[in-house]
Amino acid sequence: MSKTNPGNFFEDFKVGQLIEHATPRTVTEGDRAVYGSLYPTRFAIPSSAQFAGSVGLSPHPVEELVAFHIAFGKTVPDISLNAVANLGYAECRFHHPVTPGDTLTTRSEVIGLKQNSNGKSGVVYVRSTATNQRGETTIDWARWVMVHKRDPDAPAPETVVPKLAAFVAPGDLVVPPGLDFTRYQYGAAGEPHRFDDYEIGEKIDHVDGVTLTDAEHQQATRLWQNTAKVHFNIESRPDGNRLVYGGHVISMARALSFNGLANAQLIAAINAGAHTAPAFAGDTIYAWSEVLDKAETPVPSVGALRLRLVATKGRDESMTLKGEDGKYAGGVLLDLDLWAFVPR
Amino acid sequence: MSKTNPGNFFEDFKVGQLIEHATPRTVTEGDRAVYGSLYPTRFAIPSSAQFAGSVGLSPHPVEELVAFHIAFGKTVPDISLNAVANLGYAECRFHHPVTPGDTLTTRSEVIGLKQNSNGKSGVVYVRSTATNQRGETTIDWARWVMVHKRDPDAPAPETVVPKLAAFVAPGDLVVPPGLDFTRYQYGAAGEPHRFDDYEIGEKIDHVDGVTLTDAEHQQATRLWQNTAKVHFNIESRPDGNRLVYGGHVISMARALSFNGLANAQLIAAINAGAHTAPAFAGDTIYAWSEVLDKAETPVPSVGALRLRLVATKGRDESMTLKGEDGKYAGGVLLDLDLWAFVPR
Amino acid sequence: MSKTNPGNFFEDFKVGQLIEHATPRTVTEGDRAVYGSLYPTRFAIPSSAQFAGSVGLSPHPVEELVAFHIAFGKTVPDISLNAVANLGYAECRFHHPVTPGDTLTTRSEVIGLKQNSNGKSGVVYVRSTATNQRGETTIDWARWVMVHKRDPDAPAPETVVPKLAAFVAPGDLVVPPGLDFTRYQYGAAGEPHRFDDYEIGEKIDHVDGVTLTDAEHQQATRLWQNTAKVHFNIESRPDGNRLVYGGHVISMARALSFNGLANAQLIAAINAGAHTAPAFAGDTIYAWSEVLDKAETPVPSVGALRLRLVATKGRDESMTLKGEDGKYAGGVLLDLDLWAFVPR
Repeated sequence: MSKTNPGNFFEDFKVGQLIEHATPRTVTEGDRAVYGSLYPTRFAIPSSAQFAGSVGLSPHPVEELVAFHIAFGKTVPDISLNAVANLGYAECRFHHPVTPGDTLTTRSEVIGLKQNSNGKSGVVYVRSTATNQRGETTIDWARWVMVHKRDPDAPAPETVVPKLAAFVAPGDLVVPPGLDFTRYQYGAAGEPHRFDDYEIGEKIDHVDGVTLTDAEHQQATRLWQNTAKVHFNIESRPDGNRLVYGGHVISMARALSFNGLANAQLIAAINAGAHTAPAFAGDTIYAWSEVLDKAETPVPSVGALRLRLVATKGRDESMTLKGEDGKYAGGVLLDLDLWAFVPR
Repeated sequence: MSKTNPGNFFEDFKVGQLIEHATPRTVTEGDRAVYGSLYPTRFAIPSSAQFAGSVGLSPHPVEELVAFHIAFGKTVPDISLNAVANLGYAECRFHHPVTPGDTLTTRSEVIGLKQNSNGKSGVVYVRSTATNQRGETTIDWARWVMVHKRDPDAPAPETVVPKLAAFVAPGDLVVPPGLDFTRYQYGAAGEPHRFDDYEIGEKIDHVDGVTLTDAEHQQATRLWQNTAKVHFNIESRPDGNRLVYGGHVISMARALSFNGLANAQLIAAINAGAHTAPAFAGDTIYAWSEVLDKAETPVPSVGALRLRLVATKGRDESMTLKGEDGKYAGGVLLDLDLWAFVPR
Repeated sequence: MSKTNPGNFFEDFKVGQLIEHATPRTVTEGDRAVYGSLYPTRFAIPSSAQFAGSVGLSPHPVEELVAFHIAFGKTVPDISLNAVANLGYAECRFHHPVTPGDTLTTRSEVIGLKQNSNGKSGVVYVRSTATNQRGETTIDWARWVMVHKRDPDAPAPETVVPKLAAFVAPGDLVVPPGLDFTRYQYGAAGEPHRFDDYEIGEKIDHVDGVTLTDAEHQQATRLWQNTAKVHFNIESRPDGNRLVYGGHVISMARALSFNGLANAQLIAAINAGAHTAPAFAGDTIYAWSEVLDKAETPVPSVGALRLRLVATKGRDESMTLKGEDGKYAGGVLLDLDLWAFVPR
């Protein structure tokens, strides 16, 4: 019997099924450094233990996306090794900051299945939860992917499509214990803009661009133990290109967004996300944001901004998301809807 | 007088000579992270401090190959800077797990010399020992390399060819103190296969492939302070290619072998190794393994598998090591014979 | 109002102006590892906590250039985002070793301004100081850059050109507290040469070369949170090349200088520096040094060598700095004048 893991196919999933993902992963200060070498990140909290301590976060947390990519990477061998496409995210909440020394484990529950009309593939909905070594939930999220069937003749399961919120309600956001922006140092953080300075509907061009290389996106993706072969193997795609992991584009856009959103210090939730076009080495990634909503939190010094973070291939100073046909504009690579905590 | 190190030539070595290699090197959590960004490693012990602790290993060891590459890299400036070829390894044993904070020092003894019949080069045999800051042996191994003569007219030394074991006897394997697989978590480790599930003669195709880049193999090789110029300098070879460090192929193959050998958690020994063809950026590396032998250890929950780990350029689903002519098959890059500890 | 930072232009600077740079940055063991993967560094002090302790440095400091690049990178968004050219450094002193856990903050004072005769740009002189979380000065230096004017019609400021020392006087060098080379281990450090073995006027060819890649110089530059767009974005220069950060060439040359200057363990000061030609991926970097001066220090076991460290594109065995026309020789990329501490 073969000992290698062929991954799960559509007919292998059952609604209600629980999957414990291998391998638990301990976060270290090394992850912070490698992350900082791969993305132009400058947010003051993950950059400085002193700054983090001054807003109540000690020990020094790593960037939320470090934890997200690790937690997400764990699910790939079981959920999306045979995926045709990563269709969406929803209801992703960051519950507890992750600090070096924490060990993350991810579990998933299958919460929906819908076979495609062609009979060759189907959509799998899972809710995944990452916990630390103390059993605390650090992140949870829902995700749906289109997965190949092994056997096109396998019978279709009963269709179950879960109801997922269009966005995380402000009241459901989790302010990290101890977070207090009362003595926030705007000079050290890099920008003066606070909660009240942002208006709903405002768009921010993050200006800078980064040209991708294969070595860098491979290193990032490996760091998360993400094994999807299209990212690493030129023989896995007819065009001989290595597809850039969608999360690499997310982290690049988030880092670029410092320029204009330096005080959007912590990602509180990811409401939705769409990878609208593939990215490859040689592409130059830019980003812009739109303020979608604003909300108070139980902590008076902490506000929440709901932001649309858009990554584009090539700079689009017009910041156009969709054309008149309702389709994403040509250069758009990522449309991510998130909540971030900012000082008020 | 020139102050730069020209390396040793064949006539500089004497049987019995002891060489203390520069530079001692402290292992850190940063090494674990960089290693994880360069190789698709997912073995549960080096990945998770919690998992490691659950099998008796605390503090959290780094992968055996991290220590091996560091220890080996130290020997390059003295032993193989003027090497024509790295001919082989033998009797490599891992004595003591290496954890962040350990400082490794390597010493070598020349144990054999044999001038080639052309008079222009010769084979140097050394036994090298890496110790930690407490003076404990962490790794030792024998290695032989073909080294240029500085002066073709230098007289040939007396030929001394050491007797080296074809493989490390199972009774000589060192089970790390405290290692106990009694409560081994197969779900967390990623695969259900244990000692009894592997049969002598069984072959395992590890399926996945990784396309090499220059940036990545250079970073890996530098991390080990390995200074062999062919890895870094396009002007050092007529074809303008940077030769990939053989150890990069070893680590890549070991990481790929997770898929089918996820529970071969710890490398106990390297019995023999041959780099059978050069690798370059753009090559896509695959791996397969063959179970050569099985052995019990003094710890009832710990078994040892003797494995042939083969790296190939391009995938060979037939897993052919040698052709009918007895020569290595076309795509074979590495033929490594090792012992690994697995749960019983 | 735009929230993105356009950087300062020439007319935005005033003599006496104080600038607190974002973002404070905590140094970690991860930085040591990433640095070691990007540069072929082997100096025994930053390599080994044991060796560092044996010469009185504990906890284990990182390389001086790690701290320099971080401290320098902080100034880029405020000082040189709109720079035409980085013209020079002077009076750079290393006051206090930086160890993992230290958080660095950089402040600058504008100490000079001189508009160019074309009216379109001017030279800005700043003195920058990096301090750790205890408020101790770790590095300070002067630097001058040519910066674009936003508005060519903005009036010229009064010309103020600060007097800067041609080199740091030996008596102003700061020996790190506790440093004592009395029991220096030359074998472990890699070379036998000590203070008395170096002669003023002596040149040392460091022999080895490294071919640059885009991925590696980008990672290095990002690690320092240096945001100058020319290093990352192929769309920012007409030739489509990513310009290599000058500090990358400095670190590469410094690491290569191990071969011949292995005991020049600590950089004490940078007297002057000129980036004389641009470097790009594909260039192969070599280095040579010239001993410019020697000096005693208050610690009898510690001497200081004043060294010219020259990086070249392609190897120049003649070690020619300038041609008969007084201009830098063709391949010269970097002319750096520094003081280093060596055992006597």
